[in-house]
Amino acid sequence: MSLVVIGSMAFDALETPFGKVDRIIGGSATYVAWSASNFYKPIKAVSIVGGDFPKEEFDKLTERGVQFEGVEVVHDGKSFFWSGRYHMDMNTRDTLVTDLNVLAQFNPQLPESYQDCEFLMLGNLVPAIQKSVIQQLRKRPKLIVMDTMNFWMETAMEDLKEVIGMVDVLLVNDAEARQLSGEFSLPKAAMKIQAMGPKYLIIKKGEHGALLFHGKHVFFAPALPLEEVFDPTGAGDTFAGGFIGHIARTKDISYENMKTAIIVGSAMASFCVEKFGPQRLQSLTKKEIDDRMDEFVELVNFDIDLVGA
Amino acid sequence: MSLVVIGSMAFDALETPFGKVDRIIGGSATYVAWSASNFYKPIKAVSIVGGDFPKEEFDKLTERGVQFEGVEVVHDGKSFFWSGRYHMDMNTRDTLVTDLNVLAQFNPQLPESYQDCEFLMLGNLVPAIQKSVIQQLRKRPKLIVMDTMNFWMETAMEDLKEVIGMVDVLLVNDAEARQLSGEFSLPKAAMKIQAMGPKYLIIKKGEHGALLFHGKHVFFAPALPLEEVFDPTGAGDTFAGGFIGHIARTKDISYENMKTAIIVGSAMASFCVEKFGPQRLQSLTKKEIDDRMDEFVELVNFDIDLVGA
Repeated sequence: MSLVVIGSMAFDALETPFGKVDRIIGGSATYVAWSASNFYKPIKAVSIVGGDFPKEEFDKLTERGVQFEGVEVVHDGKSFFWSGRYHMDMNTRDTLVTDLNVLAQFNPQLPESYQDCEFLMLGNLVPAIQKSVIQQLRKRPKLIVMDTMNFWMETAMEDLKEVIGMVDVLLVNDAEARQLSGEFSLPKAAMKIQAMGPKYLIIKKGEHGALLFHGKHVFFAPALPLEEVFDPTGAGDTFAGGFIGHIARTKDISYENMKTAIIVGSAMASFCVEKFGPQRLQSLTKKEIDDRMDEFVELVNFDIDLVGA
Repeated sequence: MSLVVIGSMAFDALETPFGKVDRIIGGSATYVAWSASNFYKPIKAVSIVGGDFPKEEFDKLTERGVQFEGVEVVHDGKSFFWSGRYHMDMNTRDTLVTDLNVLAQFNPQLPESYQDCEFLMLGNLVPAIQKSVIQQLRKRPKLIVMDTMNFWMETAMEDLKEVIGMVDVLLVNDAEARQLSGEFSLPKAAMKIQAMGPKYLIIKKGEHGALLFHGKHVFFAPALPLEEVFDPTGAGDTFAGGFIGHIARTKDISYENMKTAIIVGSAMASFCVEKFGPQRLQSLTKKEIDDRMDEFVELVNFDIDLVGA
């Protein structure tokens, strides 16, 4: 059995109020893999890269139990490239460059070895490709988690809705939840989106935490108040990786366990933003993860002693 | 022993995306009293009103254990009037009218009967008046909680800092914490503000919850995701009232108990926004408060089951 992750593997150029990098490893599949591999293996990646993607990056992830049979290497092509600049509040950013490069011709063919997929993480990508991967799996995975973004709502809404109808858990941010549902109130947006298919909806609010909706239930996970947010790139993918990694490890897809999975995702995201790109994730120890989980418990834990004048 | 509350008692005119009222009871002392009186009595108010302030409003609060000996009535004057319009996101608003009226001449003389003050809640007001009330108390209260706003940072920063140096708990919103400290990061802002005097700092983030800082400790209380936010006016004062009401009831000023007090404040604020002005607070039952506290427990409660790939 395995966790299959589909997404981009890419280069990013980043500018934040704290510094600048011209070329650093990025991509949704990369971040998900770095994050989830703390909790589960094997992870089987589906992606496409150019001949410029460094062998060392594959090697480092291979050591952590990530497999790449489903990653197409186009030797005379260039990897996907994204460049962005963050504003002071780190919640908003401008995209400066998007070079699809080899991603423009991405049409993944799932290797036979990926048919043991028990958990499927659809990283942010063209909805039609996300759909194709679901359809290529002969046995439906135990849980399908999907990430997406506003860009697909503007350019491929019909395809997007079709994929949303096929998944169990949808991950979007608050603005995207509003855009997708046409509702400003998040609880109302959550009801409408659940009616589109997914039984679980996670709304990410960046530094303001994340909400998990399921039927009429709602759970809130805070973000850790951080002294320094160095670079938010990949935080959402890292969150998704921690979420699916915890679910895959425990093989428990209950609502109760998803709450814990969201705290794991929040903890992983809080590391991601401490350095440029996936660097912080690459140096992470189990002890550091355990300690940060304890910080989350302390952050929200209170004794209830009820009222009466 | 008593809880003394100082603040405005006023009329508001409000416009939200959901409706409009031309004249409704408002003021920080009013909201604090409605909220705190669910948990504690007697509450002794310090304020000033004009001859136009309705006797029925005093009567309704008197029934709940609120006393008004320290409230000056200027029979030929008009009560403070504020008018504002909320934007769609309900987190931002424009002030349309501010008529200080009798508040301009407010120079409270604390009645002798208020000297039994055990807990002091300084609602948002001119810092010099807040200071005067502290100085008039011969015995320092067990806990002094202070609310303030950006307006005083712009017009009376020296006075404001002096009062901040005299209190135990300061309540501000995130923008105000940044303005007061000159730090963008909230944990850094919290360290600087604690160095100004208050050992406890509560940073309110509206629909994104509230943070309690104490030394290096931090606690986060979510806001309940609400289907309808009808009118946010008074939510901050109502939060403060729930906080100080719980502390006064339990007489426990520990950090642990302040966590619970913040959840109580959040629960009370979640009611406040459901109707215009203090209307919802006026119809509240103990059962409703207990049920909402349970919702908060459900909102953040999770089982921790730790990691290991």
